[in-house]
Amino acid sequence: MDNHPYIHWQTELEQLFDPIEAELQNASAIYILTDENVHPLWMNTLLENCSILQRAHIIEIPAGESSKEWEIASQVIQQLLEDQADRQIWLINLGGGVITDLGGWIACNYKRGISFVNVPTTLMGMVDASIGGKNGINFMGNKNMIGTFQEPDALLIYPGFIETLPEQELLSGFAEMIKHALIADQALWEAITELEEIDASHLIPFIKRNIQIKNHFVFEDPFEENSRKLLNYGHTLGHALESWSLSQNANWSHGYCVAQGMKFANFLSWKKGVLEETTFGEVNEFLEEIYPSHALPSHHHITPYLMQDKKNNAAGLQFTLIEKPGIALFNQRVEWSEFETLYVLWYQSIN
Amino acid sequence: MDNHPYIHWQTELEQLFDPIEAELQNASAIYILTDENVHPLWMNTLLENCSILQRAHIIEIPAGESSKEWEIASQVIQQLLEDQADRQIWLINLGGGVITDLGGWIACNYKRGISFVNVPTTLMGMVDASIGGKNGINFMGNKNMIGTFQEPDALLIYPGFIETLPEQELLSGFAEMIKHALIADQALWEAITELEEIDASHLIPFIKRNIQIKNHFVFEDPFEENSRKLLNYGHTLGHALESWSLSQNANWSHGYCVAQGMKFANFLSWKKGVLEETTFGEVNEFLEEIYPSHALPSHHHITPYLMQDKKNNAAGLQFTLIEKPGIALFNQRVEWSEFETLYVLWYQSIN
Repeated sequence: MDNHPYIHWQTELEQLFDPIEAELQNASAIYILTDENVHPLWMNTLLENCSILQRAHIIEIPAGESSKEWEIASQVIQQLLEDQADRQIWLINLGGGVITDLGGWIACNYKRGISFVNVPTTLMGMVDASIGGKNGINFMGNKNMIGTFQEPDALLIYPGFIETLPEQELLSGFAEMIKHALIADQALWEAITELEEIDASHLIPFIKRNIQIKNHFVFEDPFEENSRKLLNYGHTLGHALESWSLSQNANWSHGYCVAQGMKFANFLSWKKGVLEETTFGEVNEFLEEIYPSHALPSHHHITPYLMQDKKNNAAGLQFTLIEKPGIALFNQRVEWSEFETLYVLWYQSIN
Repeated sequence: MDNHPYIHWQTELEQLFDPIEAELQNASAIYILTDENVHPLWMNTLLENCSILQRAHIIEIPAGESSKEWEIASQVIQQLLEDQADRQIWLINLGGGVITDLGGWIACNYKRGISFVNVPTTLMGMVDASIGGKNGINFMGNKNMIGTFQEPDALLIYPGFIETLPEQELLSGFAEMIKHALIADQALWEAITELEEIDASHLIPFIKRNIQIKNHFVFEDPFEENSRKLLNYGHTLGHALESWSLSQNANWSHGYCVAQGMKFANFLSWKKGVLEETTFGEVNEFLEEIYPSHALPSHHHITPYLMQDKKNNAAGLQFTLIEKPGIALFNQRVEWSEFETLYVLWYQSIN
């Protein structure tokens, strides 16, 4: 797609692996990393349609964020070692963001690097997680603390996968589409606010545009030194909420946490005079309807997680704020004291 | 040095960190990763001579290959997290190959990458381990199974460090110097075979030349697709021996194992008609005098470790052979059956 030759969009499942058929044929072995949800839903169909996968070894791990840990990564590596998998194997990561993050990290590190392919099966994976080369595992309750940057050898998108997604998963990915619209594309914002229903068939037409937006920033700034930081909109508080909810075994989805993070970023944008009050109200109403606020943690409970964020430090926090739908500002420094005051205000307004 | 601007040679200890003084001043914090041997020997002297290090946090780990494990890596990462170390810290790896391999891997993975500096204190570190961007940890008894390629931001060489090295450590590094001579530099081979004594003062004059040789191959072929494979001379059997000796708690040094590996590679070179018998005898005699063969494992005990080598696979083993001192051949495929026959022959000749 566009100037990203490793990304392939396929509406026919049987053609999904065509772009890398020769490479897979030459691989010393093919491994598919997947989870207990995707495996029963799609593996048989995939093997029937894509004959190149017939000889693949399948590694299944438990579903969910708690698999993005050293314990699971080391079990996968152990299996590869026991199989005497060499550096000429190809690893296919078939699943959501957990699978592509974990599998990408394993591929970068196993014997100092093997080829890997991302095949996202979730909306979140297609429009965000599988693109851009970030991989990693969580560590001691902190998201993505151990990881690297490495693009996959191929990214294969088959939009039909999202037709079997549970609603909560679909909404999780939709949050990243809202993010893309708010930071970079007013027309997309208008289109998605006018959606009659939020289901697979209504969302599939927007996937390509979202891949383009994500790719645009990744291509412009692969190591997140400037414009790629726009993609962190909603993620400063979002990641902290997600880590906190993991510690509570509350299992809030990534997208739900990002939606709360966007609501808070909008509140900051308004209070700092960047975003007009009426626009703040409109955006907030849309987000609140789809992602209503549950009981959020107090300032004291969320701060430790914010301190661990890779982008924050002792001097303060880094936020991406919005001026209006489609225009955002990165590197917006907020001191810890200012954050505390505004978080308490916001917290009182929603709890 | 040469076309490697990140490598700095300093004969005065107080100038060792001058090339990166500005970067260290701007770092949010400085960490020194070192081990229980280097810490008492050098840290006070270093802090007295290099004032920029006054504010450094020191992380000490146990000495030896058994520290190159996830358990130790995760303890270091945990400490960084507890200190709320952000991505603007600099990590200084002060020690031998274990410290630079482990510290480099941590730096590549902590929050997706922080700046790091290698300061090798062993001869092995100076002429080999700290150069070339390979890092990693061992896993389930297999060397460097989890790792990446990443050059340090700076490599600072102060040859005086080797004056406090125990003899066994000096001999370990000397094995890599012999390797460099045999694969690439006949004049160096002649010079080191004529050494009156193998001690720090006699070896220091050769360090620069050895860095040049290692760098030459790394620069020409950073991802080890062609000529860099020459540097694996002695390492096919050497790494397997080292893993085996770890499993026996025998603690053979890396250089000692590589020396045995070079002896075996020479035997293969001779038996396959690549190396003349008289030259084989001369090289063997030199190696045998410095690195006499201990009781080696039988074919059955060494094969499992050879199978895990990143460079071997089901089709056979990859050896680097020598034609004569200074000229070597990489990608020399040896089938498992041929290996078995020749290893048994060699084993009988030395046990």
